[in-house]
Amino acid sequence: MISGRCAACKYLRRRCPSDCIFSLYFPPNDPQRFACVHRIYGASNVAKMLQQIPPPLRAEAAETLYFEARCRIEDPVYGCVGVISQLYEQLQSAESELAKTQAEIAVLNCNPQEAPIEANSNFNTLLAPFHSNFLV
Amino acid sequence: MISGRCAACKYLRRRCPSDCIFSLYFPPNDPQRFACVHRIYGASNVAKMLQQIPPPLRAEAAETLYFEARCRIEDPVYGCVGVISQLYEQLQSAESELAKTQAEIAVLNCNPQEAPIEANSNFNTLLAPFHSNFLV
Repeated sequence: MISGRCAACKYLRRRCPSDCIFSLYFPPNDPQRFACVHRIYGASNVAKMLQQIPPPLRAEAAETLYFEARCRIEDPVYGCVGVISQLYEQLQSAESELAKTQAEIAVLNCNPQEAPIEANSNFNTLLAPFHSNFLV
Repeated sequence: MISGRCAACKYLRRRCPSDCIFSLYFPPNDPQRFACVHRIYGASNVAKMLQQIPPPLRAEAAETLYFEARCRIEDPVYGCVGVISQLYEQLQSAESELAKTQAEIAVLNCNPQEAPIEANSNFNTLLAPFHSNFLV
């Protein structure tokens, strides 16, 4: 159990009711957490959003609201969408690199004569005794 | 210029002032756009966020706020963070697949004798005349 007022009720300078919608998700030892979501969504919108969610999922919702609020404070123009764009670019780049590498393997498998230099030089080393036999 | 009241002022049933903070980013032909951000952030928070951003960046900010609000309406528990998690998982999977494929290429380059069957059979075909010469 959390003793005293939760971070939200402390912030809002009000009594913390026994059925406070914030108390489980905004404990008094982390006042910054509530300050963030309050700054972006406002207390009443956060309360409304939490109330519309089944209780077992509210902790996750509070966590993601906090994450999004922090992103928006750090990047007021792009917020979370900035993170999405970065991840999307990284994914595009990894997928294109993967396609390139898979194509390279396909070429190596189908045309082993186009294999890399080390393979060719090993091949020549193996053939060398036969070449010399052939020449004599 | 946008004629008449913007979507925000229509929604809020108020006169649209000439210096309306919403009018450029919430045109009257897309009332849903303002309804979304209003539902998640509230009109005053959206206005405050836009006012804190230099004017040339406000359109981008309105767009990302709209995107995040839509995500939160569609997924009240995870919102945008759900999209981030999905992209992150896809990126992890692509990067792990890439690392595996790159390791496969490294093995093929360093140990061509471990190359696939077609390569070995071609190699044997090439060696065949020398083998027969050697035997006679």
